[in-house]
Amino acid sequence: MRLDERLAQDSQLVAELPLCQLRLINDARFHWLLLIPRREGASEIFDLNKADQHQLWHEASVVGQMLKTLTQADKINVASLGNVVTQLHVHVVARRRDDAAWPGPVWGHGECQPYAPDHLDAMRHSLLAELEKLQPPL
Amino acid sequence: MRLDERLAQDSQLVAELPLCQLRLINDARFHWLLLIPRREGASEIFDLNKADQHQLWHEASVVGQMLKTLTQADKINVASLGNVVTQLHVHVVARRRDDAAWPGPVWGHGECQPYAPDHLDAMRHSLLAELEKLQPPL
Repeated sequence: MRLDERLAQDSQLVAELPLCQLRLINDARFHWLLLIPRREGASEIFDLNKADQHQLWHEASVVGQMLKTLTQADKINVASLGNVVTQLHVHVVARRRDDAAWPGPVWGHGECQPYAPDHLDAMRHSLLAELEKLQPPL
Repeated sequence: MRLDERLAQDSQLVAELPLCQLRLINDARFHWLLLIPRREGASEIFDLNKADQHQLWHEASVVGQMLKTLTQADKINVASLGNVVTQLHVHVVARRRDDAAWPGPVWGHGECQPYAPDHLDAMRHSLLAELEKLQPPL
């Protein structure tokens, strides 16, 4: 899969799921994941065939539930926007009532605050460890 | 289904789909729909059982595709946020490069501009007419 340059720049690889690449947005203000289906040319959800759509939302649901538990979030935001980056990607964002943008959306809110490198690695490893615990596995 | 007061106030019923109530947000700046699953107590997508999740995303996909064609939109935004209203609802928004919020998100952007009553009815009827044309039906 060719990964859009903006997505590559803004996020770090966490894992390859059955359909999607799972990435962590490098913004320490939020626990913010991306799911990017490995399908060339898809921009809208309905550009995927039905089986892929089903798998995408399955992965988003499992990852969202995992992220909510891991981060003790108040709410999970799930969104496919793509107004800036056309390559199909789904945001899965853990929201807290005390986060920087609550209750507004995270997109376009203020300035990104990159993680310290060791914090970014720690978060990726925490996510990987949670993914490996999933029963049934994704 | 008990409908959240804020959702009821901000939108008008278009149709009852197999799982969801389809509503039109009363804001003439955007073509903005809501899908609200008729399931009491659900707040997150993963509060629904797997069959309902599948049906919800099926309805969102079909409605999104229909809305894109009807409005000649540049992009469809699909999102489950729920930071303000806890009742589970999915936004399906037709976006245009010349719309009031592009390329930012519609949530929390500027002031709502209610439709003129006849325009609201016309939009609801257009949506209903498109829904009735769907093969296979939803």
